[in-house]
Amino acid sequence: MSKTNVISYLNDQPFGRLPILGVSPSVEGGRWPAKAVVGEVVPFAATVFREGHDSLGVELLLTAPSGKQSVYRMTPGDPGTDRWLTSAWLQEKGQYRFQIRAFGDDYDTWHHNATVKIAVGIDEDLMMLEGIALFNRGATEKGRSAQSAKLFLTLAEELANQKRPAKDRLAIAEADVVLKAVAAEPIRSLITLSDEWVIDCERERAGVGAWYEFFPRSEGAVFDAKTKTWKSGNFKTAALRLPAVKAMGFNILYMPPIHPIGVAYRKGPNNTLQAGPQDPGSPWAIGSADGGHDKIHPDLGTEADFKAFVKTATDLGIEIALDLALQASPDHPWVKSHPEWFTTRADGTIAYAENPPKKYQDIYPINFDNDPQGIYFEVLRVVNHWISFGVKIFRVDNPHTKPVAFWEWLIAEVNREFGDVVFLAEAFTRPAMMHALGKAGFQQSYTYYTWRNTKHELETYLTELSQHTADFFRPNFWVSTPDILTQYLQFGGPAAHKIRAAIAATASPSWGMYAGYELCESVARPGAEEHIDSEKYEYRPRDWAAAEKSGRSIAGYITKLNQIRAAHPAIRQLRNIDFHHTDDSAILAYSKRIAAEHTVANQEDVILVVANVDPHAVRETTVHLDLAKLGLPYGSSFEVTDLITNQVFTWSSDNYVRLDAFLEPVHIFKIGKLV
Amino acid sequence: MSKTNVISYLNDQPFGRLPILGVSPSVEGGRWPAKAVVGEVVPFAATVFREGHDSLGVELLLTAPSGKQSVYRMTPGDPGTDRWLTSAWLQEKGQYRFQIRAFGDDYDTWHHNATVKIAVGIDEDLMMLEGIALFNRGATEKGRSAQSAKLFLTLAEELANQKRPAKDRLAIAEADVVLKAVAAEPIRSLITLSDEWVIDCERERAGVGAWYEFFPRSEGAVFDAKTKTWKSGNFKTAALRLPAVKAMGFNILYMPPIHPIGVAYRKGPNNTLQAGPQDPGSPWAIGSADGGHDKIHPDLGTEADFKAFVKTATDLGIEIALDLALQASPDHPWVKSHPEWFTTRADGTIAYAENPPKKYQDIYPINFDNDPQGIYFEVLRVVNHWISFGVKIFRVDNPHTKPVAFWEWLIAEVNREFGDVVFLAEAFTRPAMMHALGKAGFQQSYTYYTWRNTKHELETYLTELSQHTADFFRPNFWVSTPDILTQYLQFGGPAAHKIRAAIAATASPSWGMYAGYELCESVARPGAEEHIDSEKYEYRPRDWAAAEKSGRSIAGYITKLNQIRAAHPAIRQLRNIDFHHTDDSAILAYSKRIAAEHTVANQEDVILVVANVDPHAVRETTVHLDLAKLGLPYGSSFEVTDLITNQVFTWSSDNYVRLDAFLEPVHIFKIGKLV
Repeated sequence: MSKTNVISYLNDQPFGRLPILGVSPSVEGGRWPAKAVVGEVVPFAATVFREGHDSLGVELLLTAPSGKQSVYRMTPGDPGTDRWLTSAWLQEKGQYRFQIRAFGDDYDTWHHNATVKIAVGIDEDLMMLEGIALFNRGATEKGRSAQSAKLFLTLAEELANQKRPAKDRLAIAEADVVLKAVAAEPIRSLITLSDEWVIDCERERAGVGAWYEFFPRSEGAVFDAKTKTWKSGNFKTAALRLPAVKAMGFNILYMPPIHPIGVAYRKGPNNTLQAGPQDPGSPWAIGSADGGHDKIHPDLGTEADFKAFVKTATDLGIEIALDLALQASPDHPWVKSHPEWFTTRADGTIAYAENPPKKYQDIYPINFDNDPQGIYFEVLRVVNHWISFGVKIFRVDNPHTKPVAFWEWLIAEVNREFGDVVFLAEAFTRPAMMHALGKAGFQQSYTYYTWRNTKHELETYLTELSQHTADFFRPNFWVSTPDILTQYLQFGGPAAHKIRAAIAATASPSWGMYAGYELCESVARPGAEEHIDSEKYEYRPRDWAAAEKSGRSIAGYITKLNQIRAAHPAIRQLRNIDFHHTDDSAILAYSKRIAAEHTVANQEDVILVVANVDPHAVRETTVHLDLAKLGLPYGSSFEVTDLITNQVFTWSSDNYVRLDAFLEPVHIFKIGKLV
Repeated sequence: MSKTNVISYLNDQPFGRLPILGVSPSVEGGRWPAKAVVGEVVPFAATVFREGHDSLGVELLLTAPSGKQSVYRMTPGDPGTDRWLTSAWLQEKGQYRFQIRAFGDDYDTWHHNATVKIAVGIDEDLMMLEGIALFNRGATEKGRSAQSAKLFLTLAEELANQKRPAKDRLAIAEADVVLKAVAAEPIRSLITLSDEWVIDCERERAGVGAWYEFFPRSEGAVFDAKTKTWKSGNFKTAALRLPAVKAMGFNILYMPPIHPIGVAYRKGPNNTLQAGPQDPGSPWAIGSADGGHDKIHPDLGTEADFKAFVKTATDLGIEIALDLALQASPDHPWVKSHPEWFTTRADGTIAYAENPPKKYQDIYPINFDNDPQGIYFEVLRVVNHWISFGVKIFRVDNPHTKPVAFWEWLIAEVNREFGDVVFLAEAFTRPAMMHALGKAGFQQSYTYYTWRNTKHELETYLTELSQHTADFFRPNFWVSTPDILTQYLQFGGPAAHKIRAAIAATASPSWGMYAGYELCESVARPGAEEHIDSEKYEYRPRDWAAAEKSGRSIAGYITKLNQIRAAHPAIRQLRNIDFHHTDDSAILAYSKRIAAEHTVANQEDVILVVANVDPHAVRETTVHLDLAKLGLPYGSSFEVTDLITNQVFTWSSDNYVRLDAFLEPVHIFKIGKLV
């Protein structure tokens, strides 16, 4: 047996001298980087322990994209878990790297032993000698600051002063100045470094934003009752709606595809198979003689009109998000130029979309396997084309029907050149695929929020999103889409619309709304969870001013929600949600807190939401607050201000609430000063 | 932008063409190999899915240490999870490697579409054409067997026969022979391989065994009442007890340290500070003028005596496990020869064990950091020394007070040369350390079983051990040790002893018992959860024959338990435990099942344990069985035979039981034939 070198073994082998396991944030053992956005407060954790009774110190070593290094001392988590915790406010865009450093905290070990022994008069001289050795070693350590080295030498001398009782000498060695010095520069042994882990920190809008969706062809569309003809809205008329979108506080405007629409098998109103000559067709049936994914529908205007539209939005502080829907109508130019990008059936025809026996003959799915080199780069070209118009956000239609590997390639390629481009995955499918798309690079994802309406469902789902999947899956809570109209909204009236918007806007850093929600449009196609007369197949101009005048609009409520979001950084965080117990099965209570040092204003921000999720009733109950989660002392009373109504209450740990669905179904409290 | 090669990207990038995630068994993302033992049925799982509606096939490719490759078709787990499952019976010692293979199951896709469409008369010709293309492609695939190629060509011809209706042609293409052929050799596309994962498969005793512990000095020790002197037992007298140990069905005998015992600060009876001249001292205070860890206590005999003892045991089919307790008495030769292997305090003295202000002056802990090269290799030398005596099992004392990295090094070094050597970790500490020791290489671990006495505790803990930690942590359920005597045993009498033994012996593949348990020795030192007059500090000869005669012994019960274990392979598995509901909070019910193809006898084995964990009462309740977990059809009735009493009952899904703690507190049923 040849003798291994134990020292080099200890430096290389899987377990370090002090074990460091279960490092978080991490995604599948480091197979993909963890995700964060600029401004996010990211919790870090690791399982670290040592044999025996001596003290352990644990630190997070964080290197920002700029190269700036920071050290955070970690603190123990729940007893018995050996978890060590800290959090860091990430403020730079790019790749953060981090390691966990464990070490024997030799001062603390000595201090503990000396305290216990001197209290009972044991080993007093020995503990003084041990202290002298400790401080002398500390003083001469490499990297020790001159100031602390000097302090340590003084301490060593003081401990050697046999004229004073040991307990007095110990008192000197545990003075505040000493504790501060050893906290800032510990006296370490057995220093062990974990592997290096990576966090991709993207721009804020990758994770935080208020989205609004409209069909530009509807905004300004005019029906001539005499000729029974429609005149389509366009970028110029749609631009007139942008100030109102801005006024409601939205910062991203998403539009369904703006490209030419196919004629073959075009769908008529309510998804019928026969389209009349006046029916504009579904914007998702992309491609006609006028062109494909890189062209603008002639009815909407020219490229110059689109540029002007983008500029108007940008000047208002609104970003434009385009739809990336990778499918073609039978009239798409690709069908002729690149039939290999589709699937040819055994009879020589091109395969349309099917879910046998259902047929969707207006749509040809893309085949990504026949000619990956060709189709991958064509899609990249299309994306780059729209980026050249100033578009930096893409809402991706049905990404789960395309290969995950394709998305991973595309997003990496785009982000390599344009790091600010954000892709939102519109995948409504099983969790494994939705999570995989997040890992593959999608900056943001649609969620199951639409179908999570009860208190229990919301608590469970928000816990999953904020605790279990936050490292790779950034939720966007859409309260409505052109595709989905749940029974909750169909039958819940304005109360339901307010409740769903208030929870989406406060629980999730990103939320979204499809035009018409502010008018509580909620008539379903009979038997379906979809809007009747869906805008997907028809022009749908809305008389916003008339709705406002008649009091049918909740735009004012939406505006208030977005104002509250803008004013309160705690709300814009994903991972900081805590739930509080209430005695009623329909009263949901949660809070979000951010520490002063993690805010631009250097001011703690604590928000408490208490929502009646039953849109049909008045509910009364008691809310039991976990004061520690609010950063409040046990037994305290404090001011809460409802940011919706401006009412001020004095609350403590147990509080009566009455929430009338027909008046104000949701409290959004700012936690104020102790009273 | 240079054009990446998409094809080579798809071969290299993290996501394969078909995503494969969450592969199990695995330990921390592959940082350590997963564990198994020869004869273990290991469950495999992976999250695999594809975009769109087409069919997916998933396989486990398993390569045995001998190089033999096996393919297991995986089946879907719970709906919506995208988990795919199978299990494999590992029968070779050494390193298994495995990959998950995903592929488009093109026959199944075609068959599904053809079935749905032809049923409603759509696309009949097209589906025949698609089928012809499918079978022609399948027939010419590389690696296709001649037999199935021929079948596919015939099928292609049959499908082309336009004289027959499409539904008749489809019937031919879905005949049993076709389904068998495509199951055995699927027609694949988009073949994707996962990373390779590793399982260390160790010999059976690494995970499965019945352990007995005795102090050899007690067996045959004689007190001379006249001279008031003790004559120590030794290997020769202790060997006389081995046939009884064998008769009870134990296959491993563990002895506390057999080395010379220190004199300095030797502990007297009941851990008192003053030992009298007749007190033998704790065997864990290792080392005296007679030598250290590589020497035998002179009272026990010579090296030749020990060899003879090992031979006697081996001939009986009992393996000897020695204690590896890495600490020294102040009299240990290392203290003089290698003071650097201990910690020298600032006053020049060697540090004894302390938990300030408590002092353990009879023990010097080893320092593994002063001279790792020296001490690591010295321990390796000691272990190799005992291996040369035929010892292949080491029970390691307090491994959690030594560096984990040291154990990882030592076990790897030992196992590299002696693959059969097994280390059992006696760590009673927090979960993180206990789990880390398993990952570091310990083949087996003591557990919290001693402190899990209620039904809820047992269900929770057994679920953790069988489901969550089984890939790296192999439990050994000790019902007693010289250190621990729980209140449950102190006050539960023979019923408690039978209950605890029956559950340990059936729930865990490894279980253990310290001598005296069969006599229900349960008098505690007042105020402690320890035996009074602990054998650790005294000779403790037992009159086994008298106990047997007076009916004080439960050795017969223990014997029966070990016989049942030996006869029933289902019991010797770790990962196959299922719980069943009972209406009583103290009646625990669990079953273990092994499929016929996973047994040497090629016979299914199903065991159902129903235990009253309340040792003070008669309990009556209804046991509600999950028949699917027992491999039984819904609504069936079947024979159950109590292997303790040989009583036979007819049971079905809901069954009345009455368990009298004072008669037979536990049913161990073998599930028999349907009635």
